[in-house]
Amino acid sequence: MPVTQDQRSEIDALRGTAQPTRRATVASLEEILYEPITVLDHGFIRVIDYMGDDSAIVQAARVSYGKGTKKLLEDAGLIRYLMRHWHSTPFEMAEIKYHVKLPIFVARQWIRHRTANVNEYSARYSKVQDEFYIPAPGQLGIQSSANRQGRGAVLDEAQAAKVIDLLREDAVRNYRNYAWMLNEDDAGAPLDADRSGLARELARMNLTLNTYTEWYWKTDLYNLMHFLRLRADAHAQYEIRVYAEAMLDTLKRWVPHTYAAFMDYRMGSAQISATGLGLIRRMLAGERVTQEASGLSKREWRELMEVLGLPSA
Amino acid sequence: MPVTQDQRSEIDALRGTAQPTRRATVASLEEILYEPITVLDHGFIRVIDYMGDDSAIVQAARVSYGKGTKKLLEDAGLIRYLMRHWHSTPFEMAEIKYHVKLPIFVARQWIRHRTANVNEYSARYSKVQDEFYIPAPGQLGIQSSANRQGRGAVLDEAQAAKVIDLLREDAVRNYRNYAWMLNEDDAGAPLDADRSGLARELARMNLTLNTYTEWYWKTDLYNLMHFLRLRADAHAQYEIRVYAEAMLDTLKRWVPHTYAAFMDYRMGSAQISATGLGLIRRMLAGERVTQEASGLSKREWRELMEVLGLPSA
Amino acid sequence: MPVTQDQRSEIDALRGTAQPTRRATVASLEEILYEPITVLDHGFIRVIDYMGDDSAIVQAARVSYGKGTKKLLEDAGLIRYLMRHWHSTPFEMAEIKYHVKLPIFVARQWIRHRTANVNEYSARYSKVQDEFYIPAPGQLGIQSSANRQGRGAVLDEAQAAKVIDLLREDAVRNYRNYAWMLNEDDAGAPLDADRSGLARELARMNLTLNTYTEWYWKTDLYNLMHFLRLRADAHAQYEIRVYAEAMLDTLKRWVPHTYAAFMDYRMGSAQISATGLGLIRRMLAGERVTQEASGLSKREWRELMEVLGLPSA
Amino acid sequence: MPVTQDQRSEIDALRGTAQPTRRATVASLEEILYEPITVLDHGFIRVIDYMGDDSAIVQAARVSYGKGTKKLLEDAGLIRYLMRHWHSTPFEMAEIKYHVKLPIFVARQWIRHRTANVNEYSARYSKVQDEFYIPAPGQLGIQSSANRQGRGAVLDEAQAAKVIDLLREDAVRNYRNYAWMLNEDDAGAPLDADRSGLARELARMNLTLNTYTEWYWKTDLYNLMHFLRLRADAHAQYEIRVYAEAMLDTLKRWVPHTYAAFMDYRMGSAQISATGLGLIRRMLAGERVTQEASGLSKREWRELMEVLGLPSA
Repeated sequence: MPVTQDQRSEIDALRGTAQPTRRATVASLEEILYEPITVLDHGFIRVIDYMGDDSAIVQAARVSYGKGTKKLLEDAGLIRYLMRHWHSTPFEMAEIKYHVKLPIFVARQWIRHRTANVNEYSARYSKVQDEFYIPAPGQLGIQSSANRQGRGAVLDEAQAAKVIDLLREDAVRNYRNYAWMLNEDDAGAPLDADRSGLARELARMNLTLNTYTEWYWKTDLYNLMHFLRLRADAHAQYEIRVYAEAMLDTLKRWVPHTYAAFMDYRMGSAQISATGLGLIRRMLAGERVTQEASGLSKREWRELMEVLGLPSA
Repeated sequence: MPVTQDQRSEIDALRGTAQPTRRATVASLEEILYEPITVLDHGFIRVIDYMGDDSAIVQAARVSYGKGTKKLLEDAGLIRYLMRHWHSTPFEMAEIKYHVKLPIFVARQWIRHRTANVNEYSARYSKVQDEFYIPAPGQLGIQSSANRQGRGAVLDEAQAAKVIDLLREDAVRNYRNYAWMLNEDDAGAPLDADRSGLARELARMNLTLNTYTEWYWKTDLYNLMHFLRLRADAHAQYEIRVYAEAMLDTLKRWVPHTYAAFMDYRMGSAQISATGLGLIRRMLAGERVTQEASGLSKREWRELMEVLGLPSA
Repeated sequence: MPVTQDQRSEIDALRGTAQPTRRATVASLEEILYEPITVLDHGFIRVIDYMGDDSAIVQAARVSYGKGTKKLLEDAGLIRYLMRHWHSTPFEMAEIKYHVKLPIFVARQWIRHRTANVNEYSARYSKVQDEFYIPAPGQLGIQSSANRQGRGAVLDEAQAAKVIDLLREDAVRNYRNYAWMLNEDDAGAPLDADRSGLARELARMNLTLNTYTEWYWKTDLYNLMHFLRLRADAHAQYEIRVYAEAMLDTLKRWVPHTYAAFMDYRMGSAQISATGLGLIRRMLAGERVTQEASGLSKREWRELMEVLGLPSA
Repeated sequence: MPVTQDQRSEIDALRGTAQPTRRATVASLEEILYEPITVLDHGFIRVIDYMGDDSAIVQAARVSYGKGTKKLLEDAGLIRYLMRHWHSTPFEMAEIKYHVKLPIFVARQWIRHRTANVNEYSARYSKVQDEFYIPAPGQLGIQSSANRQGRGAVLDEAQAAKVIDLLREDAVRNYRNYAWMLNEDDAGAPLDADRSGLARELARMNLTLNTYTEWYWKTDLYNLMHFLRLRADAHAQYEIRVYAEAMLDTLKRWVPHTYAAFMDYRMGSAQISATGLGLIRRMLAGERVTQEASGLSKREWRELMEVLGLPSA
């Protein structure tokens, strides 16, 4: 279970109170506010706060004095137009804040998105919890030969079991030694009253990269979509993709018109190069084009054929 | 009056509705939400939306599951601590959005603060209104001789009147010619049915820099305070300072503990150089220090004496 | 002529000296270093400095100890791969600095690109020069009816002459009154010894938006390309597009492999939506698709047909 | 030794070549270009490239056509003025690029500085080397009781030896298991020809946080100084402070006038609050002020007395 009894009570206390506000408010997002959505074995995302809705985008795009919306259809059309033509500033006018619990090696990928605000749990200041990500056997892919940074078929059962044992044993032993160095038991009491504990800022270096950490992460809608486009993509590493997928659901609840435009113009779209466009034009004109005569490398040809739903050979 | 009848109705419609929310809510800021606060002769600021409150800073600093607050005193103390030690990330967890109407030459200074989101009224897309900033006579300072980028004593009455006339005449004539080039009257109808209007993206270049523009401007609390520290400072140009001062009032309503810490540790504070600290130590030890023996230039000495409330000669 | 005799001498002095360096150096860019390239009637761009070359991108992508390059072909291929898959960080490892002279209304568009460093000539600190952008008659397009923010056919000769006269007269008169308010002649001497001049920070508000300003502008290669993709695009306003086009030439001199990949994957490319891709697949399978049955609006259909080189009706 | 024989040759090849350039060039920085400067047990920093020098700051501040420098004294004075009054944009006109090898837990602190460009060695793409940071015994401080995020006195010898053994054993064992999961020996050959290796993107999660990583890191001079002010500070964690200190030396070589101003106005300076300034004024006027009557908390009083070089009790 990703949250303790105490944390559950704190969450329920927040969810149990409501105040009136004049601000733009989204009922379907309020419904899940503060609620942890489980990701991986011990992780979660929680929506903590948000600013704006689909209308706020329209309102800013029109620099309005009031709500800024016209007919619903027109608003949806404007959002589609803004998305299609890469207008970024109106989408920056909405903001969202998450609380995320995630393995450190995932956090290291995530933090590369710089246009966001982050407040991470400090292992200099507090002891880390003994929670580690241990992949499910079905996730233990072998090194892909086609893609230097991906994974392929799943390991056989025996080897998968061995890997899982190693990951668990190493994480647990390293954590136990971390606690020993700190000289601190689970309740925060000294393990041994006669010795001093090593500084937390040092002991933490013994932890493994699958140890869970937590942070508050806040970003605007434009940069959230940029994050999701890269991290919910099929080529993203599974362990970050599941977070992005959970966040896509919150996007849909929050700004449904923007979500629809995003799925059409970003997630499901393709960027076709000048050379690729030239080939499509020739194919539409009835010409038979081969990779050899295309000017594309084999790899690029394969990528283009995939996008066009054609066999690459 | 900075807003029209129609705009007033739109604002009232927004102010007249309220919805329940589970989010952090600040009653004293809700009170003025959407309401224009007059600045200069035709300008204003309006708070359009906000995310978080003093507690949200504490909540993020503690990476909490609940509200994150402890005793009120402790929370205020934590905020003071974070401010004193230049912790930036917790303050980035709160966000505010303004609608601002301001002269273009002020907008050009303002936009230099890059860590903010901006959506400006587009003079390529719509005709600009005929509103210009004309300084009050009491603001017409002469070029300062002490400060190359400041103003000094006020012009005499006759010359002030001449300056105001020139500013008004030039702005009005240029606007009239702008409208002629667009071939568009105040109601948007052609002035002359027999000719085409020049493109808006071109005609706008005839406007003067005191013409008013508008934008939505959104930033986080940390960067807002950075903006205010520079722009509410006594050395900032008057025409941007009055906006910053109006925003200081909204800061006080929004996050009173943060405001108090900000006034103490930023607005009223001074950065003393290593050399300056050495001099203060010697003075506190009873030594009499002169500018000549201080190692400081005359200008720096004067600045230090001013901070210390001492005569500079 | 965009530079004065004195400025010319300063430029020649810089161009006349050379020092040895161990840094990555690009001969074809050194050739034009510091040299003003004329844009519009009084504007220019000058390359002032640069860091890195095509190899520096490869070197960073491989986190190399040495030059990082392998065979030339492989390097070009890696750059194409990085561009195609939207890898941004290696392109951020090269940097360029320009000196730009441009009309204020163009500067206002340009500054919206926030991921850059800017140092602008200060009209609070110094008097502005009397230089204004006056469009050539061939640029005086009427307001486009198809595109709310564009221009269409050119004004007839008589009206064009009238517009040019108005723009020039208004700019010149406003500048003359600006100088009167400052009480400063072209040589910096008082016009009238018996009165004080208005502060520069105030007088500047009387200038028109076609007055030229200058700045140093520095950005990394990734953000430069983002700027060029938007501003060298056929839909960008002519007055900023000509700057972007001049900068494209400097890009080609600086990083030829990156330039080639950029032209193929960005400038000449198209982003096709999920719906659009579905239509292309059906058309390639021999189906006849109409706008009515496409699920696209008329406008989107027209945009897609244009990309595919097909008639839209 | 932080670099291998092959890496040494690559570095020497780069250092052995020089080309003429018209750009601003700094001989004392060229001297150490590409050369690794050892930090911690296996880490280093290397300056890979730079743009600009002290003059470039002055040149940009003056938006010059030439070198922009006047008399040497005047230039140094301008740099001091810009630093004292927090002008940021001229310092952003110089840029530097480092290659850094550092433990992952240090990298996690470092990356929080977002206004920089980073290209990290990818453990998804390549196998990580078996190098771990093992602190020297003299660095093994106990958890500080005064400062929740610091360290105090050093552990006794026996316990220090135990800690070092644990850190080494755990890192080595986890690395060995990492290599087993990858099924890859030190030369990149399979350990066991009959089984597949786990994907690199998964196996890496078994590594400890003291494993070394590498990146290219590029930033402008303004943000570099911001980084150094925080990370070369006495309160920063030792393991990042040693990197900042090595970088301070490169700053001194690169821009000596800026370095001098930085040491005076930033590193050695203090920000005194409004309350603190009031107290100093009273003390300078001869009043005896106590903590109880000061309005400051005990902690703040202690901090202020320390800055003033006075006993806090």
